[in-house]
Amino acid sequence: MEAAWIAELRAVVGERGIVDDATRLFAYEADGIVLLRQRPDLVLLPRTTDEVSRALAILHRERIPIVARGAGTGLSGGATPVAGGVVLSLARMRDVLELDPVDRIARVQAGLVNIDLSLAAAKHGLFYAPDPSSQQACTLGGNVAENSGGPHCFRHGATTQHVLGLVLVLEDGTVLDLSEPRVDPLGLDLVGLFVGSEGMFGVATELTLKLTKKPATVETLLAIFESLDAACDAVSDLIRARHEPSAIEILDRLTIEAVEASVYAAGYPKTAEAVLLVDVEGSEVEVENSVRAIEPLIRARGAIEVRVAKSDYERKQLWAGRKGAFGAMGRIAPDLYVADVCVPRTKLREVVAHTTRIAREKNLKLATVFHAGDGNLHPNIAYDRRDADEVRRVLEAGDEIMHLCIAAGGSLTGEHGVGLEKLPAMEWLFTREDLATMCRVREAWDPDRRMNPGKLIPMRACLETKQALARPEHLT
Amino acid sequence: MEAAWIAELRAVVGERGIVDDATRLFAYEADGIVLLRQRPDLVLLPRTTDEVSRALAILHRERIPIVARGAGTGLSGGATPVAGGVVLSLARMRDVLELDPVDRIARVQAGLVNIDLSLAAAKHGLFYAPDPSSQQACTLGGNVAENSGGPHCFRHGATTQHVLGLVLVLEDGTVLDLSEPRVDPLGLDLVGLFVGSEGMFGVATELTLKLTKKPATVETLLAIFESLDAACDAVSDLIRARHEPSAIEILDRLTIEAVEASVYAAGYPKTAEAVLLVDVEGSEVEVENSVRAIEPLIRARGAIEVRVAKSDYERKQLWAGRKGAFGAMGRIAPDLYVADVCVPRTKLREVVAHTTRIAREKNLKLATVFHAGDGNLHPNIAYDRRDADEVRRVLEAGDEIMHLCIAAGGSLTGEHGVGLEKLPAMEWLFTREDLATMCRVREAWDPDRRMNPGKLIPMRACLETKQALARPEHLT
Repeated sequence: MEAAWIAELRAVVGERGIVDDATRLFAYEADGIVLLRQRPDLVLLPRTTDEVSRALAILHRERIPIVARGAGTGLSGGATPVAGGVVLSLARMRDVLELDPVDRIARVQAGLVNIDLSLAAAKHGLFYAPDPSSQQACTLGGNVAENSGGPHCFRHGATTQHVLGLVLVLEDGTVLDLSEPRVDPLGLDLVGLFVGSEGMFGVATELTLKLTKKPATVETLLAIFESLDAACDAVSDLIRARHEPSAIEILDRLTIEAVEASVYAAGYPKTAEAVLLVDVEGSEVEVENSVRAIEPLIRARGAIEVRVAKSDYERKQLWAGRKGAFGAMGRIAPDLYVADVCVPRTKLREVVAHTTRIAREKNLKLATVFHAGDGNLHPNIAYDRRDADEVRRVLEAGDEIMHLCIAAGGSLTGEHGVGLEKLPAMEWLFTREDLATMCRVREAWDPDRRMNPGKLIPMRACLETKQALARPEHLT
Repeated sequence: MEAAWIAELRAVVGERGIVDDATRLFAYEADGIVLLRQRPDLVLLPRTTDEVSRALAILHRERIPIVARGAGTGLSGGATPVAGGVVLSLARMRDVLELDPVDRIARVQAGLVNIDLSLAAAKHGLFYAPDPSSQQACTLGGNVAENSGGPHCFRHGATTQHVLGLVLVLEDGTVLDLSEPRVDPLGLDLVGLFVGSEGMFGVATELTLKLTKKPATVETLLAIFESLDAACDAVSDLIRARHEPSAIEILDRLTIEAVEASVYAAGYPKTAEAVLLVDVEGSEVEVENSVRAIEPLIRARGAIEVRVAKSDYERKQLWAGRKGAFGAMGRIAPDLYVADVCVPRTKLREVVAHTTRIAREKNLKLATVFHAGDGNLHPNIAYDRRDADEVRRVLEAGDEIMHLCIAAGGSLTGEHGVGLEKLPAMEWLFTREDLATMCRVREAWDPDRRMNPGKLIPMRACLETKQALARPEHLT
């Protein structure tokens, strides 16, 4: 017979809102970090804030850990289930609740897919600016949890700069309606604090988001280089000359090769050592002037070709290659270690060169794509998980790259979050006092530490007891 | 004989770093809200993070409350001393520690005056964007505490969007160095949370701030209107047509009168009912096109005159009038109640009209200046504090205006903070659960609640005991 509390949850979310058979649970074992797996005992798919609140109250009473999940596209294991825990999927909460084109505000349910908001806003000449590469699939709630970025965040800022308000459900089911004021934060900035808290404070069910005016004109420049160093130098020159493109991306040789061999083939020349993609936005005349000023700067660094996309179609093609880069890497090796680090952009060339050296020393296949404008690198290592020695070398290289970035004043993550994957590295950058402060702030929200336990803040810092993570009896 | 702990503090900050005589303490009784006064027992003026840390450790041991203070220009009573407390002034910590023009980052001590950072950055073609009207005097540390805004924050965002890192000293003297990473936040965003916490979490001693590229060209438009409604409508039209000036300000008739009678005389026509000031930034051609597009929109709303400043001098004059408006109000009545509320900009006209009605009904002199672009109003009421009945009506009107803004989806403060002055109003906008969460977050930083006690979060929410605020025996 079904446990009483499961029957209660079933009554809250309805028959279609609960997943408890092994076959379907399989799909929830991992997020984008597929190496980290844990079968959840139960998945709930509520439809409203009220359902989330009632479900969380029941789970609170039963002392069951909760992991919220958007589309599961995350790349740090933030949505990896925990043993004995319940996964709360927001996948059925995808309504646009309100769209005000004059105040440029949208209120949406947290499970809405990122691109769908931009599509809904398009008829008003507006869009939602943060554009992760997974924007066709990832949810806005997931973006809030990880403070996601994207190529155009160089100009427009990451998710945190676009969230005005939230409706939150705390671990015990309490609802905090922080959707007003719809202007700058007032009092302690709980909304700002929640963004990037990786599901450890509660579940955001409704989001009030800023919309951005679509630029009148966008031009995309593609520059081909014979060396990666030269492409990095060109970026430094652009920044130093105070040009302000909306996106500056670099793809290295191995990435280009993978993209061109894939369905995302973008017309990048396969022989290039590096491709530089630059988007310039603004009024027609402004864009024209910028392109005219940027082109010679890039050529001066030895670009063997600089071309401007001739049509919207060609522009989209060039970008499809960039956005499909991760998927395309599947052609090089069965597995991909996606690193995500960030350094001050003046350190770009030096860190990239050092990263290449690390990969060469360890005999690894390195393919790097970067949001070069804001110093965010993805040094991706293609490998085969069946080769134990290679796996060891990959993880060693990942650690070395993170140490390198910390030494350069950089960060462990540019946009993918800490999750499970970078948990140990938090102790390299933060002191015990820093981490203890984070932990106390977490406990202000969730004193029992049952929201997404074991992520983001190293357990040692929180003196997290084994019990908090142990499988509750009634779930066995 | 001097208490032992005072002698200890004297040894830490030196003879010139301590103020304990009544005459000099007088200067620290109040910040910009002069009606709220409390003589501190002692003022400390440390010079380094280490001195702050050692002083706070002593005060922690003695259980003495601490109020940090920048320049004392705040307008919500955030730096009003507390009984039995010590004021920690950052006035001697005003060094620029580092200025990196390529990464566009400055590291400064918290007592540096806002304008001095822009002056230091000017030779690199950069500036610090948030520009409170008090920027000639206010400190960057005070700006961080209050998350200060300014006219040009319409385009560039308030203080929180310009702070990359902080060095903090907690109540017990613990130093948290959150000045790395120098890129987007990692892990829980403690830096973002600290900004706007009004001195209740600790003392920021060093700030890592973003610098912004100076625009190539700036033009200032002045438009004269025969009605305030028409000026508001013109702003709505600008926003709706998706123009993006860097600042949009309105001054009403009484403000114009006061400014023109003062040393800030800016050449605003004294007979106007409203003056609209618009700054447009960008490349020369872009600015030219914008001005050409904006002018007819403004004229269409019945502006009786639209002029573009002909020189940098004239531009500065027009702005001096705006920035001097608060000071100039002294000519109308001896005292000024400075309100600071924020509404979604589509509600501007309606809220302004209602505010005018409230003042008329209560027979009060209302002078409103607004950062119209982001819906931030300052309905200022000129009064005489010796007239008890007038004071009562002023406070009633202030409350009515705040209720009005909350009903419109707005906020109790646009940029001045909550401090002491708006404490009761926090309960109008936030639920008990919201406030209790804020309080728990505060206790994560300062479990004994001795940093700036009695500000920002209503005492009731924190169940703040009388003891926490009572005068410690050794100070009597």
